[in-house]
Amino acid sequence: MIKAAIVGGSGYTGSELGRILCRHPQISLEAITSRQNAGIPVAKVLPSLQGFTDLSFEAQLSDDVDIDLAFLATPHGASMEIAPGLLSRGIKVIDLSGDYRLSSPEVYEKWYGHPHSDPEGLSKAVYGMTELFRDRIARADLIANPGCYPTCSVLSLAPLIASGLVDEKVIIDAKSGTSGAGAETTKATHHPNCGATITPYKIVGHRHTVEISETLSTVAGSGVGVVFTPHLLPIIRGMLTTSYVTLKKDKSKDELQALYDKYYSGRRFVRRVAVPSIPSTLASNFAEVGAEKADMGTVVVMGALDNLVKGASGQAVQNANIMFGMDETVGLDFPGLGV
Amino acid sequence: MIKAAIVGGSGYTGSELGRILCRHPQISLEAITSRQNAGIPVAKVLPSLQGFTDLSFEAQLSDDVDIDLAFLATPHGASMEIAPGLLSRGIKVIDLSGDYRLSSPEVYEKWYGHPHSDPEGLSKAVYGMTELFRDRIARADLIANPGCYPTCSVLSLAPLIASGLVDEKVIIDAKSGTSGAGAETTKATHHPNCGATITPYKIVGHRHTVEISETLSTVAGSGVGVVFTPHLLPIIRGMLTTSYVTLKKDKSKDELQALYDKYYSGRRFVRRVAVPSIPSTLASNFAEVGAEKADMGTVVVMGALDNLVKGASGQAVQNANIMFGMDETVGLDFPGLGV
Amino acid sequence: MIKAAIVGGSGYTGSELGRILCRHPQISLEAITSRQNAGIPVAKVLPSLQGFTDLSFEAQLSDDVDIDLAFLATPHGASMEIAPGLLSRGIKVIDLSGDYRLSSPEVYEKWYGHPHSDPEGLSKAVYGMTELFRDRIARADLIANPGCYPTCSVLSLAPLIASGLVDEKVIIDAKSGTSGAGAETTKATHHPNCGATITPYKIVGHRHTVEISETLSTVAGSGVGVVFTPHLLPIIRGMLTTSYVTLKKDKSKDELQALYDKYYSGRRFVRRVAVPSIPSTLASNFAEVGAEKADMGTVVVMGALDNLVKGASGQAVQNANIMFGMDETVGLDFPGLGV
Amino acid sequence: MIKAAIVGGSGYTGSELGRILCRHPQISLEAITSRQNAGIPVAKVLPSLQGFTDLSFEAQLSDDVDIDLAFLATPHGASMEIAPGLLSRGIKVIDLSGDYRLSSPEVYEKWYGHPHSDPEGLSKAVYGMTELFRDRIARADLIANPGCYPTCSVLSLAPLIASGLVDEKVIIDAKSGTSGAGAETTKATHHPNCGATITPYKIVGHRHTVEISETLSTVAGSGVGVVFTPHLLPIIRGMLTTSYVTLKKDKSKDELQALYDKYYSGRRFVRRVAVPSIPSTLASNFAEVGAEKADMGTVVVMGALDNLVKGASGQAVQNANIMFGMDETVGLDFPGLGV
Repeated sequence: MIKAAIVGGSGYTGSELGRILCRHPQISLEAITSRQNAGIPVAKVLPSLQGFTDLSFEAQLSDDVDIDLAFLATPHGASMEIAPGLLSRGIKVIDLSGDYRLSSPEVYEKWYGHPHSDPEGLSKAVYGMTELFRDRIARADLIANPGCYPTCSVLSLAPLIASGLVDEKVIIDAKSGTSGAGAETTKATHHPNCGATITPYKIVGHRHTVEISETLSTVAGSGVGVVFTPHLLPIIRGMLTTSYVTLKKDKSKDELQALYDKYYSGRRFVRRVAVPSIPSTLASNFAEVGAEKADMGTVVVMGALDNLVKGASGQAVQNANIMFGMDETVGLDFPGLGV
Repeated sequence: MIKAAIVGGSGYTGSELGRILCRHPQISLEAITSRQNAGIPVAKVLPSLQGFTDLSFEAQLSDDVDIDLAFLATPHGASMEIAPGLLSRGIKVIDLSGDYRLSSPEVYEKWYGHPHSDPEGLSKAVYGMTELFRDRIARADLIANPGCYPTCSVLSLAPLIASGLVDEKVIIDAKSGTSGAGAETTKATHHPNCGATITPYKIVGHRHTVEISETLSTVAGSGVGVVFTPHLLPIIRGMLTTSYVTLKKDKSKDELQALYDKYYSGRRFVRRVAVPSIPSTLASNFAEVGAEKADMGTVVVMGALDNLVKGASGQAVQNANIMFGMDETVGLDFPGLGV
Repeated sequence: MIKAAIVGGSGYTGSELGRILCRHPQISLEAITSRQNAGIPVAKVLPSLQGFTDLSFEAQLSDDVDIDLAFLATPHGASMEIAPGLLSRGIKVIDLSGDYRLSSPEVYEKWYGHPHSDPEGLSKAVYGMTELFRDRIARADLIANPGCYPTCSVLSLAPLIASGLVDEKVIIDAKSGTSGAGAETTKATHHPNCGATITPYKIVGHRHTVEISETLSTVAGSGVGVVFTPHLLPIIRGMLTTSYVTLKKDKSKDELQALYDKYYSGRRFVRRVAVPSIPSTLASNFAEVGAEKADMGTVVVMGALDNLVKGASGQAVQNANIMFGMDETVGLDFPGLGV
Repeated sequence: MIKAAIVGGSGYTGSELGRILCRHPQISLEAITSRQNAGIPVAKVLPSLQGFTDLSFEAQLSDDVDIDLAFLATPHGASMEIAPGLLSRGIKVIDLSGDYRLSSPEVYEKWYGHPHSDPEGLSKAVYGMTELFRDRIARADLIANPGCYPTCSVLSLAPLIASGLVDEKVIIDAKSGTSGAGAETTKATHHPNCGATITPYKIVGHRHTVEISETLSTVAGSGVGVVFTPHLLPIIRGMLTTSYVTLKKDKSKDELQALYDKYYSGRRFVRRVAVPSIPSTLASNFAEVGAEKADMGTVVVMGALDNLVKGASGQAVQNANIMFGMDETVGLDFPGLGV
């Protein structure tokens, strides 16, 4: 039994980790922290977990907590303060924030607006997009768990980008449910402002832009530029990305689909379909991807997933499974809701 | 031309007043206040009003503002600080807050938790449920504009209550869109918390309970008790109330409907239908009401309206029309959206 | 391993059975039927089940199918044509339609508008509201799985009704997501008609009225009358009932809650909370119930559940578990989504 | 007073015409047809119009109807059967279907799958995108009223395309509310299928693709290619298009905005904003447009409008105003809802 803790367990990704891990047959939850809920039973704050955990929130992990693995569901900036200490005690770390996702302290500072306090960790961290970097994940002590938009975008684009068939400019029109914005109240997520509309936001400069661009560049083996426009949808869970790339030379629809099927052969959680569907993935770790040929050499590439599961906590558990030598599907092998 | 001002013009009822009054042929908007937006053009804060008003928000009404009428779209507690000064200068006041709706300072203090600072105004104020109290409204200087729940509940129940055919206990199961909660962000109106559910709240003790009870008692000529359960709906505009009363002696469905048709004969904005529909009333000043006979002498009474129009700002304008001797429909005679 | 089949597997309750049973450790799915999808792989029609089942839909169960149990997710009227043959071959039956829920052929004919073709089955069938009738379910060959509205209403009301503390008239104001209406397209479930409103329907005469009334009468040991008003909500999954009963003599809030806690002591899937929440139950077999004291001796009773799980397919599996001597939680012991 | 009729008045664009025209001070509605509702009062089918029209639906326009103008809210294929007869009697025609929008019978047949029966009308029809072709509209007898997607896309792109600053390939990622799909029930608009997701559809080959491409080519004075991906949103009214074009040489954000401001100078119903918002346009004839510079010379171009008003019936009335020499704003000069 792997002993694990969740740091920051009352936000959406933290509570989703709780939902998944309380049923995981080979990971036991030893501690869950939440500064604002310290001392309160987890099941009181998250009633859906009544009967699934007896833990109470702790203000922070005690120094002598006996765990093998910590999930950091902490805000950007906080994770890099916590991770080094855990790693030094031999605890593996999966960080769900953006702190360890980028390629260098310089890039981090440019996009996050403050210096990186753990450059050494940053250089060692493995980017945890499971289907792409499984071997490195298996050997890692520190995982930078990908953002939801990057997971959806990159999983859907990777087969084409890796093939070298398309040019180096990618347009990504992304749509996310409101749970992606987190549990804190904001004007943007006030229901009268978002409940019956779709709103483009951070049209230029969203931090996921660089995360996607760096990851696609790794996949391509050369630079890939990204135009990324996120939109807030009037749904809670679920994400769709519609991307546009240009073929360097013509390929048939069948050839494109064969490319996808080969790329994801043996990958349980990525499913190639004609038109990706959010409901098919809801509450599950599955992502759906698809590509369709349009005019002028353009390929319309689509991806769908549950932003809290495959886009965050599910993929984190998938990475944990791999880090500890388990089958990647353990504790995650349930289908999406469909309806 | 009646000269009017809106005090508190950046909240939902204030901006809805702006939307209606900017097109009113006989009321001119002279000033709109908003403490937090003082100095900013109204059309910058409310882009839908671009081209409809050149006003900028003022921090507060100047002492020498030349107006005939002030709409107070201010929070509970603030209106009763402002109204007396306006009235003393001969300015008529329509207050959209709860400050002047109840029968006495004692009742006010019990339900609002603080003393009433203008008992004299409270005793003179006329409760502005237009279809019920039109004559008194015509002669009033100070109108307590009804709450959204009371408008929907009372309009749908009044014909039965006035008839004396039903007993003195009324159960009201009310459902409201989120705009009724106002423009301030809250946990309750954070989209992930409310966007795909229906939530009962203030199951006991909502302030509209006493407002409904007092108004129905006035209609009945004797005490009417109310059990009132509000629910938050995952829609923005619109409200439905489903109420349950008990017949003292049997009446046919046709007799009940005739009762409604007679009660609202000549009332432009209340429509008797088989099943009230929110979409038919959206963005309009119309309310739909209906009653259906169920078992055990129970009558199921339904009402639907747009909480920001007939449930707030539209009814306020309707009252203004009557106070100044105009036809009640001026500036309000447009149909609901339907779809 | 119990061998089971789903008859009518492409509707919402049928596919939800598929979603649950494909992960059940002690029930194996041997066949799924769907007249309109005969011959097509289940995972093609229901993409979320890709990788979870290799079955193809069959037009109907073959005469020599080797199963212990059949779930009938067939329309009203069809189940009673199928059930007798299955039972005669020693196959246990759980029927999710309304065919076996009522007390007599006469009551059935009155509410369903056509004669009952299997009165013998009707007399033997056990009403499968698990928490109430577990012992009889354990011995049954034919289960009438309850409707979603009755499950939500009765579970929330049963402790009070059983206590004898309240009078014999119950008002139930019920709100359901659109998946309760089934997979067939209708005017009522056309998105522009239902997507931003709440609509009362079948205000008098909904078939669940009599199902609730008969079940509550069984619980009470004497006749209980029901006024039942269903409303269609703009959500997909989830149901809330708000019910109103009158105390015969005063009880404190604590006494009421103690009543609930005692009644559901040891019942894993029913949770007493202050305010029931649909999201806490989503995609799970849990129901939440609660009661609050209001004025004039009225108790406001609330229930929430996922209409497709505890309100249909989850409860069906829970009943199957009991019929075959398993723990009732097998294959169902996962928490609700929370968000 | 202009005398007008609506042919096909019970669908969404037809009833929206009714909603607008019943309040138009210079157009009187003389007849509304609906084959399926013939003989029924319009206000019975569309309760929101109670008190606004006394007309009953007619099966079809009588041969001797005395009108100056007919709005055809008929399906594709039907309009071209009706228009020639009306025109021959001196009645002006505004067709809201796709029948007269394309450049030639050949293009029509290619995209609509059947021959065009009125090539002469097609050659004379003026494409009614008001802000672009006002002069020709003023002289026209037959208007092809644009589709909702083309209106939103083209209005937002036209200033850039006309400027010659961007290259000839345009990517349009479009999102529409479900009312755009019409009043007929379909699997796609069944609430459980669309109510909590966003679904790409007709990823290749939507008929609006050619309509947009031809119009943008007219604006550019040379060929413009379009990749167009429509998505169905879980909202009823409202549309957003996010388009991607590439600058041929660099321009500052200010220069781009100045381009828009100049292009739409004096155009009442098109508003340049930083981020277009559906709520600001709801239930109004306003469109909002905006452009933002992104990386790699890409400009992100956005448009928002109410698909039933500016995207259909409102623009039709705007065109009627111009055809009959009125101010274009008559009967349309009300602001969007905002909330």
